This record gives sequence, structure tokens and C-alpha cells, in this order.
Amino acid sequence: MITLTSNDHGGGLDAAANQYGGDRAEWIDLSTGINPLPYPTGEISPQAWTALPDNNARAALINAARRFWNVPASAAVLATPGASAPIAMIPRLAAAGQVHIAAPTYNEHASAFIANGWQPANPPKQAQAQVVVHPNNPDGRLFSASDLHAPLRIIDESFCDVAPDASLIAQSNTKGTLILKSFGKFWGLAGLRLGFVIGDPEHVAALEQMLGPWPVAGPALEIGTRALCDPDWATQTRSRLARDAARLDTLAQQGGATLVGGTTLFRLFEVDDAAQWQDRLARHHIWSRVFPYNPKWLRLGLPAPDAWHRIEAALA
Amino acid sequence: MITLTSNDHGGGLDAAANQYGGDRAEWIDLSTGINPLPYPTGEISPQAWTALPDNNARAALINAARRFWNVPASAAVLATPGASAPIAMIPRLAAAGQVHIAAPTYNEHASAFIANGWQPANPPKQAQAQVVVHPNNPDGRLFSASDLHAPLRIIDESFCDVAPDASLIAQSNTKGTLILKSFGKFWGLAGLRLGFVIGDPEHVAALEQMLGPWPVAGPALEIGTRALCDPDWATQTRSRLARDAARLDTLAQQGGATLVGGTTLFRLFEVDDAAQWQDRLARHHIWSRVFPYNPKWLRLGLPAPDAWHRIEAALA
Repeated sequence: MITLTSNDHGGGLDAAANQYGGDRAEWIDLSTGINPLPYPTGEISPQAWTALPDNNARAALINAARRFWNVPASAAVLATPGASAPIAMIPRLAAAGQVHIAAPTYNEHASAFIANGWQPANPPKQAQAQVVVHPNNPDGRLFSASDLHAPLRIIDESFCDVAPDASLIAQSNTKGTLILKSFGKFWGLAGLRLGFVIGDPEHVAALEQMLGPWPVAGPALEIGTRALCDPDWATQTRSRLARDAARLDTLAQQGGATLVGGTTLFRLFEVDDAAQWQDRLARHHIWSRVFPYNPKWLRLGLPAPDAWHRIEAALA
Repeated sequence: MITLTSNDHGGGLDAAANQYGGDRAEWIDLSTGINPLPYPTGEISPQAWTALPDNNARAALINAARRFWNVPASAAVLATPGASAPIAMIPRLAAAGQVHIAAPTYNEHASAFIANGWQPANPPKQAQAQVVVHPNNPDGRLFSASDLHAPLRIIDESFCDVAPDASLIAQSNTKGTLILKSFGKFWGLAGLRLGFVIGDPEHVAALEQMLGPWPVAGPALEIGTRALCDPDWATQTRSRLARDAARLDTLAQQGGATLVGGTTLFRLFEVDDAAQWQDRLARHHIWSRVFPYNPKWLRLGLPAPDAWHRIEAALA
């Protein structure tokens, strides 16, 4: 049995390697939804490491983000050290009340609201805050503007860059709305710790103050700016992820799994016994994601190009 | 007139270059207390950028920090995205009351407390929270354990690694005490965004929750661990900084300045008219620090080895 610290985040590859053996580096980690072919970090200027990140570098990143996501002019944009930091802070933007979180979903939202004194609510129309993960993790469910009712509305688009047409970015100029973006998934740079909060200027200003000055590292400003100014990479990556997701579906279905949903960064399957599937894959040193609330759900991220033969062997 | 955004942070080199001309890269920035010969960032593993920072990498950094700073076993240690993030969050660790901040000092402490509803207090014995910057910025003043009275005590040791014998780290196992460390000054890696909070386990756990999971980037974990396991670099750097500080003192004194104090990362001088000195240096494309509350104080950081001739020419 793998014990994870605090929340069930997936990941936990260290623990898996400890239990099943093998060097961590030799494991294939499909337990996340991180693009296995990341945006190339490229050259980093020496002053990105040594100087306090300056206003010009920050402005360049924010401008690139506005263009890449077609942010409405009246919405504010704040770069953050990953999406996790604003997720932890957002519950303090309003007095604690009832929050509706479209479940099941990524569990940090509920943790953060509960830690700040909020109560989970159902149905959404009675809540003072509402969270949708769009598309949802793990099932890929999409939402629309008409699903959003609460005065404080969080739209977590950490996985939406594979499907830009589905983005609810046009809602970011609606009062009380905050949209989250992440560099950890589509760009494959989870260790970079770069995310964005886009929306209601008053809330964004409050989050900026909670984070303190210089929240984002110099290298993240540089790499993020380059990536957001590179729409060709984004287009090619979307095509590749779509092809690879279809290939993974075929393999899993041949092995007896049924596709439930997902995005092209992760696929959610229904199987007879997810724990057994996880164990079988782990014996091949492939780490997968199971869910404490549904013993039949197995989530698989996409492998790197050189890892397909091992996925095929494990699922055969 | 240079206009700085929000707080007067020093820095503002972009604005200076805009006013006085010259390419930003060609300016010598003495407005900060950042070591101009940073710890070498070295090779960064690809997974530091791509994977969520794992528990093993975080544990390695924390263990290195414990050894480097001789942290008492009962004190907790948390790595943070710079020292600014915990400075912004610390005022929420207790109900807003009166805070005593030994002044004049780094202004983010007062800003954060005031933004969270605290009132500045004098004298310290009546305050519910107390902040000392140790050694103090800009004058280098040192404090002792007997100066600390309030239930919540913050010791900001961002500049203390040049004088490890002066550290109050032994106080970090005292209830209500938090000691801050920074990688931006002594190690010269301000863009890395790496800092530490060391002290009362209950407060440290609360800050950890406010920050959310994975607050520190993968490259910062790797570089920070290497640097904290390299005491030889630290020893050599302290010697070099001491020599260079003495050299800067001599030059400034020959130019008519009087040494007030400082650390070997920055020197505080009294001059007839600090704004005039700043202007004179800026015409040589050297940026310095003046203080709105004292028109005679000029603070200079240390130049890189290849910049001395320009400092000499400007001060001659």
C-alpha cells in the first residue's frame, strides 16, 4: 500500500519505486497529466537567476499571456508560482460561506476552501463561491457560462490549453470571476512553477498582495514569455497529443478498459479493478493513477515517444 | 525624478536607465545588497523543470538547510519562493494587534502587517508581534535575544550569512519565533526565488498551508541543495566580500562620504546630499540607493570585480 502525504495528489512515484523496485529515473510516470515532451527551456540569461525579476520582464510575460489567451482588456492578469499558490489563497478573497465544487475533481480546491472555514454546498445556486475545473480532472467534463452562479467563481483551466476553443476566457471580465492557467500541464514544465490568475481586477490585486513582490522566478518569466510567444509549438503539440491519446485509448481498450473521458493530456478508463491494473503496470515500472472514491477508475497520462513499447508490453 | 511602483524597494534600474540613458545591461547596479559573484547555478536536471518537485528533493534541501544553519532539532524548516512570500503571509499568523518593527528597515515588513490590519507600536514590550532585520538593512545593526519580547517574533536574517556567528538561529526553537533566510543576497541568486522560514512548528505549518503544495521550483531545490552543501564557497565568499567592502569604504571615504554601517553585502554612507551623489553616480551609469526618510544616506552594494575602475572613476 502506497502512503501519500496529506492530500491524494497522484504522483508519489518515489513511494512506488520504493515498493516495486527499480531506479526512479527508469520508471514511466503516467500518474500525472503532464505533457511528456515539454516546451524546451532553452538558454536562460544569467541575470534571470541573479537579479530581482524586474518590471519589464514581468510586463513582457503578462503581455504575452494576454495575447496567447485572448484575455479581455478589462480582466487583470497575474503571474503566480504555479496554480497551486492561488488555489491556496483564493478562499480568503471572501468571507467564508458555502462553496460548490463540481466533483469529483482535483482535490486541492476543496482542501483550500475547507482549511479557510468554508462549507461544501449543494446545489451551486446557494453557494457564495463556485469552482469548476474546465476541462475537469479526471473525466474531461466541460462547463459553460450558464453553469456559473456564485458571486465568487473560479474556473480552473489548468488543462484547457489542449482545447483552446473550449476556454471560458471571455468570462474573465465578469465580476467575481477568476480563471486559472498552468504551465505544468500543456507545456510540461511542472517544476518551473508558473501559473496565472486572470479576471476580476479587485480579486487579482488582493492575490498579488497575498503573494508579496517578485512571486515568480526570473527563469520562469523568460521561459514563460518565450512559450506564450510560440503559437506554432502549441499547435503542433495539440496535434501530437491528440494522436497519442488515440493510440493510448486503443491499447487500453484492447486490454479490456473502457474509455470514460479525459483530455488529450490524460485518459480516464473504467476497468474491473483499478488497483489490480495499477499493480500490474507498476510491476512493469509504470506508475498510474487510481482514485480512492471510485475503485474502477484508472487514469493514464501520455507516455514519451520512446516509452510506447513498454506501455504496449504492460497492457498486452 | 524616478517613480517606483508601490513600495520604495530600491532596484528600479529600468527607470534609471530610461532617465539617464544607456543600455540596462551596461549599467552597474549597486542599489541592492546582492552578491555580484553568485553561486554558480551549474547543471540542472531535465526533471527539475518538468516534474512536480518531489518529496525527496524537498527533503534533501531541508536537510542541507538544517546542517548549514545549525538549526535546532525542534525548529521546523520550510522552503519558500523567496523571503518575500512569507513576509507577506506572516501577519496572518495571529489576530491583528500592535507590531513593533525596529526602524528604519526593509519596508515590506511594515507594509505586510499594515495591509493585514496591524498597527505600528512603540515600545516593543507592548506589541503582539515584533520584527527585527538582523543584521539590519540599511545600517547593519545587530540584535540580541534579549531585544525580543512579543509573542510573535520575526528575525529576518536575509543578510546574516556574511556573519554566521551573529545568527540568532538558536532562538528558532523558542515559541512564537520565526527566522527568515534568503538565497537572494549572500548567494546572489535573487531571481531564483528561494528563501526559508525556520522556527515555531505551528506557525511554519500554517505558512506551508497558505503557500499551497510545491511552492518552490525544481531548479531552486537543486541549486539550493548544492549551495547549502558547499561551505567552502561560503567561506571564500565571506572573505572576498569583506575585502571588497573595505575597498569600497576607502573609495567612498576618499570621495567625502562617512561610513555609517552596513554588512559586507552593502555599505551605508552619510554624505552631504545623497540625491546629488545618486545623480553623479547615475551619470556614470551606476545605480545607487537613497532613502526617502534620510536625505544624507547613500547605500552602495558591492561591484563585480570588473567594475571597480568605473566606481573609482565615478567617485574620484
